[in-house]
Amino acid sequence: MPAPSASGTPPRALAFDVVGTVVDWRTGVARESARHLAALGRDDVDPAAFADAWRARYQPAMATVRDGARDFVILDVLHREMLEDTLRAHAIDPTALDPAALDDWTRAWHRLDPWPDAVEGLIRLKAHFPIVTLSNGNVALMLALARRGGLPWDAILGAEVTRRYKPLPAAYTATAAILDLAPADLCLVAAHHSDLAAARAAGLATAYVDRPMERGGAPAPDRHLRQDWEWQSTSLVDLAEQLGC
Amino acid sequence: MPAPSASGTPPRALAFDVVGTVVDWRTGVARESARHLAALGRDDVDPAAFADAWRARYQPAMATVRDGARDFVILDVLHREMLEDTLRAHAIDPTALDPAALDDWTRAWHRLDPWPDAVEGLIRLKAHFPIVTLSNGNVALMLALARRGGLPWDAILGAEVTRRYKPLPAAYTATAAILDLAPADLCLVAAHHSDLAAARAAGLATAYVDRPMERGGAPAPDRHLRQDWEWQSTSLVDLAEQLGC
Repeated sequence: MPAPSASGTPPRALAFDVVGTVVDWRTGVARESARHLAALGRDDVDPAAFADAWRARYQPAMATVRDGARDFVILDVLHREMLEDTLRAHAIDPTALDPAALDDWTRAWHRLDPWPDAVEGLIRLKAHFPIVTLSNGNVALMLALARRGGLPWDAILGAEVTRRYKPLPAAYTATAAILDLAPADLCLVAAHHSDLAAARAAGLATAYVDRPMERGGAPAPDRHLRQDWEWQSTSLVDLAEQLGC
Repeated sequence: MPAPSASGTPPRALAFDVVGTVVDWRTGVARESARHLAALGRDDVDPAAFADAWRARYQPAMATVRDGARDFVILDVLHREMLEDTLRAHAIDPTALDPAALDDWTRAWHRLDPWPDAVEGLIRLKAHFPIVTLSNGNVALMLALARRGGLPWDAILGAEVTRRYKPLPAAYTATAAILDLAPADLCLVAAHHSDLAAARAAGLATAYVDRPMERGGAPAPDRHLRQDWEWQSTSLVDLAEQLGC
């Protein structure tokens, strides 16, 4: 029997943020970037700093889609544009690179590994709840991460399915509707207070997972948005235990 | 190493028709309908014939959406309308029934069991290929079937995600695009020649699975559409063996 939240109602399904919450993007993108930077003779660039610079372009890139200035495009497309911009910022001309190498580098985000607790936690949670992705990543990206890491999703939902990037309210409510659930019956699991705050404003339940190493130990940029979430956990195994799984 | 097709190219992913191909709809819908018919005192109605009458309304119901006469609605909505029509054809007024009972009856399609070979076959195929649904069923329906039967999909795609009902060509090509695959790299697995013919016309590879008991032993209405599919199998375990899984 799943444990109830403070409001007394256990969720009927769990929707997960993935990049940062379930998988470690910084280590993986740094590893993949190190390989490409070395091939370009640019060992002077710190791969982790390159990963941070690439990720720093994430919110601005999505903003053009979220605010309607641009039709919906999947995150793989934005990742490629963000990569080219990051390369230019490092005095590397992306048009001079092998297109296949650029494709491979873009797909660094398809080759991220789960946090050590993630697979065990998801397996335990899945025994009691449907578990789905609610990520801004596109389906092919999510599927690659799932097959690489053994992430046992019941379904891959999120931005490509709803055509809405988080934190737009419809990204959350449309995901609940696809599952035939009221928003309050769906719980977002995320390591980001900004994501949880938007989910709560859209009517979802919320579960926080602490990922202190997501940015290599640097403080989270959204820490001022912390609230008293229905669940607060240190890992997905901890969350599973709190939910009686 | 997966075995190549006649053309020499193994698929890069497998997309499955589900209702009829992976799960046995007639037995399940008859079982659920028997319960509801009994509660109405209508033991005179043969539950399997009721299931057949309900299913007979499937293509006409989707046609109104496919031909653009009606905006896209999910299959759960069509199943409800088809049920109400089937009830009227049996002199049962659906407006006189408890709405909760009608909801439950509609969800008979969420409580179908896999064919005996399906789970073993899917597990073996998944070890070599991404396996996704390419069903006209909506996500909540597919998710319910997967959790009930232990169907280990990598992703739930199909009509609700593409907003296109099979056999429209875009239902197949958009699914390949979501997976970042050329149509020829995606193989549709289905028990229905009509589905496979449309998939082939859209550029997909094709694998047939024989399900002689889908209609209780009655001949398939689309048997005149049989072609020489890239793979022809008697079960998903047989298909796994043919694909070297």
